[in-house]
Amino acid sequence: MAKVNEVRLLRKEVVLVSRPQGLPTDIDFKVIESDLVFMQPPPPGSGEVILKVLWLSVDPYLRALMHADSYLSKTPAFEIGKPLSARGVSRVLASGSPGFEEGDIVYGIAGVATYVVVPDAAQRLRKIDANQPHIPLTHHLGVLGMPGHTAWIGINIITQLKPKEEIFISAAAGAVGLLVGQLAKFKGCRVVGSAGSDEKVTLLKEVYQFDDAFNYKREDDLAVALRRYFPNGFDVYFENVGGKMLEAVLEVINPHGRIVACGMISQYNKERNEREGVTNLFNIVGKSLKMEGFIVSNFSETWDAFQGEVLQLLQEGRIRYEIDVLGRGIEEFGKAFVRMLTGENIGKAVVQMCDE
Amino acid sequence: MAKVNEVRLLRKEVVLVSRPQGLPTDIDFKVIESDLVFMQPPPPGSGEVILKVLWLSVDPYLRALMHADSYLSKTPAFEIGKPLSARGVSRVLASGSPGFEEGDIVYGIAGVATYVVVPDAAQRLRKIDANQPHIPLTHHLGVLGMPGHTAWIGINIITQLKPKEEIFISAAAGAVGLLVGQLAKFKGCRVVGSAGSDEKVTLLKEVYQFDDAFNYKREDDLAVALRRYFPNGFDVYFENVGGKMLEAVLEVINPHGRIVACGMISQYNKERNEREGVTNLFNIVGKSLKMEGFIVSNFSETWDAFQGEVLQLLQEGRIRYEIDVLGRGIEEFGKAFVRMLTGENIGKAVVQMCDE
Repeated sequence: MAKVNEVRLLRKEVVLVSRPQGLPTDIDFKVIESDLVFMQPPPPGSGEVILKVLWLSVDPYLRALMHADSYLSKTPAFEIGKPLSARGVSRVLASGSPGFEEGDIVYGIAGVATYVVVPDAAQRLRKIDANQPHIPLTHHLGVLGMPGHTAWIGINIITQLKPKEEIFISAAAGAVGLLVGQLAKFKGCRVVGSAGSDEKVTLLKEVYQFDDAFNYKREDDLAVALRRYFPNGFDVYFENVGGKMLEAVLEVINPHGRIVACGMISQYNKERNEREGVTNLFNIVGKSLKMEGFIVSNFSETWDAFQGEVLQLLQEGRIRYEIDVLGRGIEEFGKAFVRMLTGENIGKAVVQMCDE
Repeated sequence: MAKVNEVRLLRKEVVLVSRPQGLPTDIDFKVIESDLVFMQPPPPGSGEVILKVLWLSVDPYLRALMHADSYLSKTPAFEIGKPLSARGVSRVLASGSPGFEEGDIVYGIAGVATYVVVPDAAQRLRKIDANQPHIPLTHHLGVLGMPGHTAWIGINIITQLKPKEEIFISAAAGAVGLLVGQLAKFKGCRVVGSAGSDEKVTLLKEVYQFDDAFNYKREDDLAVALRRYFPNGFDVYFENVGGKMLEAVLEVINPHGRIVACGMISQYNKERNEREGVTNLFNIVGKSLKMEGFIVSNFSETWDAFQGEVLQLLQEGRIRYEIDVLGRGIEEFGKAFVRMLTGENIGKAVVQMCDE
């Protein structure tokens, strides 16, 4: 029988100090330290896995979970004084769960922490093949992870995008939008995206082959902008932002248009009384529109189909992706999160927690 | 060959004098008189039919068409100085169209006028069997007409309502809502409606067998009211009003809920800058909601199925309906229209243009 050691590690975690008002700031988060003690190996059958976190995903939905009423129906809000959690890529340090071994690389929701104990690993973690050529580990947080799956579901299941349709994508240079645009181009669609900087617009047009793109911050009237880029209107809107952009879309989208909503980042930092009202929803009636929201975690049965398709496209070099490392080390997580919320990132925002 | 007479009639028509600001008033409409001259019979093959209008339907969508931008995509706005049009039941005075004969009773969009010349009758009119027992002619403007078809499509096609689901209906004592509630009860659903008077609430509960109903004007907080009547939330919302009611619905509706939108009457009288914004659309994402609008005129292929089903239910005495004659004579059309917009009517609002 293998020798059992008690292992003691200094663990750092990010806890929520206060519910942010508007845009979060450094004082809403704090790094705390504690001892993590575990048995190496853990008791067999405990189902428990000990992780060293390598990369953390910095996602807009985390902001929604910082409101007391998280408005993500299935996911409870973060609690004051408790550690945050986020999707991450980690290395297994010790495993009491039959599916995992020391040294495995795994993907799943982990604490915003240097080390994490996952009690029901089989339910919460997926093993990653860390040796695929051209696939950095961070892709599993982006194009091969939750944002990529979101893009794939929106295109293939919710809107069932058809060849020759015209599609508008907001936050197009973000973690979801970049893949939405590429998948739509493969379907033979005309694709236009909006983004929040000239640099992103250039990237979308010159590197990502969008048919057109514009910087929404340079536009006085978003409906006028949309009419300029879509002289014949458009059929599908991939909604990532909400608020005034949605209002403009409702003016310009064609009759029988479809809107797929996977996020409304423009509203996440706003308190109830500050939220922008959308005043022209009667267009949903007058234009016979369909608007559908979804949460990617309800679509786990499509995970394999998504992974198979996108992995192959990546390996064949037919799609590309951007990773934006907004911080290095757990101390930079809070700052990286704020930078993502202000739209600084291009593509998937991540924090590198330690060397791979 | 039959003798041809020239017939001359004094025709009255309602024209739009000015685009209403907010709630329309009498001065937005004017009755004008002119001579209507036609051949009796009209030249064969002209396709033309001359109608005497018996009943006119007073519908909320007419208000939308009074805005310069009608926001009903397929239907152009009314023009200043030109006669209004509305759905009506009429008697054929003279026919140059093979499908129609003098004396026929027909349904279709007609001028708001005592007499109307319909140039392409075959496309625009449907013959009505005027001798069906227990079916007053006005039913063809309500439960057997466009409002009834709207209810039927919403239940059977858009939401595909299932047994045991819970459904909330706004404007439940209106022309559409009354049939929605009854069809939902047949499907074994729990049905709750809102309406704008205690009298309507009593009618819904005691005569129409709604499981519950409430007067929204007596509620300070519509979301609190909805939680009271739906302790377990609800699955489907039949949207007739928009604005604050929609906002409350988005708070209370269950995850994966469906919203079918066939009207947003609360917004029709409002100018662009007065419209109520809906500030919690992120619930569409968080709760994975689906919201779909439709225009009944796009569903003509379902007309026969709808008519067959509802006519049989009426003849078997299994459903009932309310007709509210808000005016008699063309001079009362404008006033009746305003009364309908303020919610005075119970069931289908109509104007009797002359004796049958």
